[in-house]
Amino acid sequence: MSDTTRREFLQGAGTYGFAAGVGLTGGVGLAGGARSVAPSGVSAQEAVHPFGYPEEGLDVERTREVGYLGFKGMEIRDGTRHSGCAFGTFNAIVGQLAEVVGAPYTTIPLQMMDWAGAGVVGFGTLCGTLNGAAAAIGLVCDGRDARAFIADLLTWYSETALPTNLYAPTGDLPRSTAESNLCHVSLTRWCRSSGFASGSPERAERCSRLAGDVAAKAVEMLNQGAMGLEKPSEKTVCRSCHYMGPNYEMGQFTHGEMNCLTCHIELKEKKVGPGGHASGS
Amino acid sequence: MSDTTRREFLQGAGTYGFAAGVGLTGGVGLAGGARSVAPSGVSAQEAVHPFGYPEEGLDVERTREVGYLGFKGMEIRDGTRHSGCAFGTFNAIVGQLAEVVGAPYTTIPLQMMDWAGAGVVGFGTLCGTLNGAAAAIGLVCDGRDARAFIADLLTWYSETALPTNLYAPTGDLPRSTAESNLCHVSLTRWCRSSGFASGSPERAERCSRLAGDVAAKAVEMLNQGAMGLEKPSEKTVCRSCHYMGPNYEMGQFTHGEMNCLTCHIELKEKKVGPGGHASGS
Repeated sequence: MSDTTRREFLQGAGTYGFAAGVGLTGGVGLAGGARSVAPSGVSAQEAVHPFGYPEEGLDVERTREVGYLGFKGMEIRDGTRHSGCAFGTFNAIVGQLAEVVGAPYTTIPLQMMDWAGAGVVGFGTLCGTLNGAAAAIGLVCDGRDARAFIADLLTWYSETALPTNLYAPTGDLPRSTAESNLCHVSLTRWCRSSGFASGSPERAERCSRLAGDVAAKAVEMLNQGAMGLEKPSEKTVCRSCHYMGPNYEMGQFTHGEMNCLTCHIELKEKKVGPGGHASGS
Repeated sequence: MSDTTRREFLQGAGTYGFAAGVGLTGGVGLAGGARSVAPSGVSAQEAVHPFGYPEEGLDVERTREVGYLGFKGMEIRDGTRHSGCAFGTFNAIVGQLAEVVGAPYTTIPLQMMDWAGAGVVGFGTLCGTLNGAAAAIGLVCDGRDARAFIADLLTWYSETALPTNLYAPTGDLPRSTAESNLCHVSLTRWCRSSGFASGSPERAERCSRLAGDVAAKAVEMLNQGAMGLEKPSEKTVCRSCHYMGPNYEMGQFTHGEMNCLTCHIELKEKKVGPGGHASGS
């Protein structure tokens, strides 16, 4: 991780930053009135294309509420109504940026990530709250910054007992740690832990709160310019045991940074841990 | 699936369609010179916000090549260079739409989905080619149309021997069926099947071709207005065995439309199939 870049994000003289109403432009065809800003420590070429982030940031708790309410269903600026987990996070971040910054955020259809709900049209893959928030981050910044923020967001999601219940209009709900970034696993583990069925109103309420929590965490990270994890994750990932190289016979891994042991339960029995396979396994 | 809506997509009088250079606008703040088109069979409210698709479509084989080359690395219109699977598909579709249609597609940073590479910043979740293509579809259309296209794209991906080798500048590669939409599973199955390691140049070549194939399939679907699957998928999904309801004790499922048996290998031994658990299991 490029800690220096991340910690300098938005801190000091204008890394991706711009005062409200003055857009950082990039690419072709953006609405008029905007000016390019060459952020400190970032080449102009790297900086011209993301839309940037306001120096004053967004309100974290307001974002949590908007994310929650977006999941339940919300009318957007063109008068249409949208809902769901991916809309919840994407709209909470990009919708607020459109209000605070204006163009070019106002050109983005706030429903462009609706399809990512329930792990992509119900397929149960990547949690829609993460997909929506990551796409919003992808409009704010790119390259190492975007990747670092999103990697930290995914790790936080998989290792935090959620929902936080920081916005809990109907009282606290049971919390569980997903140990995964997949909708299917996250949801199953919460249902098993809480005893509430997947079709229960409590489960829908839980996912509404996750939309709020994930949007809020993304904004908190962007506001700070870094997530500030105090310690590295202790999860067992592919590289705990495998190497990635051109020689098949020597062992290899395929892409993966989630906790291996959540799905590969046979490895848990072998006591595989962060340091690799336990002695004798 | 809403077959009527899908088959009418772009066919006949202007469902989301517009002549090149004449944008279908929505939302707030889009560049001037565009006109709104109320598609047949779709309310104006539903239609005003996606960016739409040109009636003449895009060239499928050109898209396959651009997707492939984008994975390898390509300079975009602002002079920066990008690469990877999610950039490959997103850039192949949105970049071409920016060329053919112009605004509002030109306002989209072509690197906004780069983070989705390798299953989201290397985490191995949703295949980046699918995430990039789905985000592009989310700019073209929304609601039922976007969901239907994306569901079909995910199903096609999981059930087709890939890469197609229709663009094969270095000759044919071994093909495998992913039986999943996850990067980690798709890649592992190809490596096991082909004997090529994850760090091999052949594996990178395989993923380049998938970027081309997935972008091309998405464009083929958008051009046709429907994917045209001749038969429903035979995969075993959650609902083959479980119901989703509020009563935990009666059994339930959590979101999932991938093939259960790819990960839940213990169920394969029980001969669970599309009709549910086999007799006596």
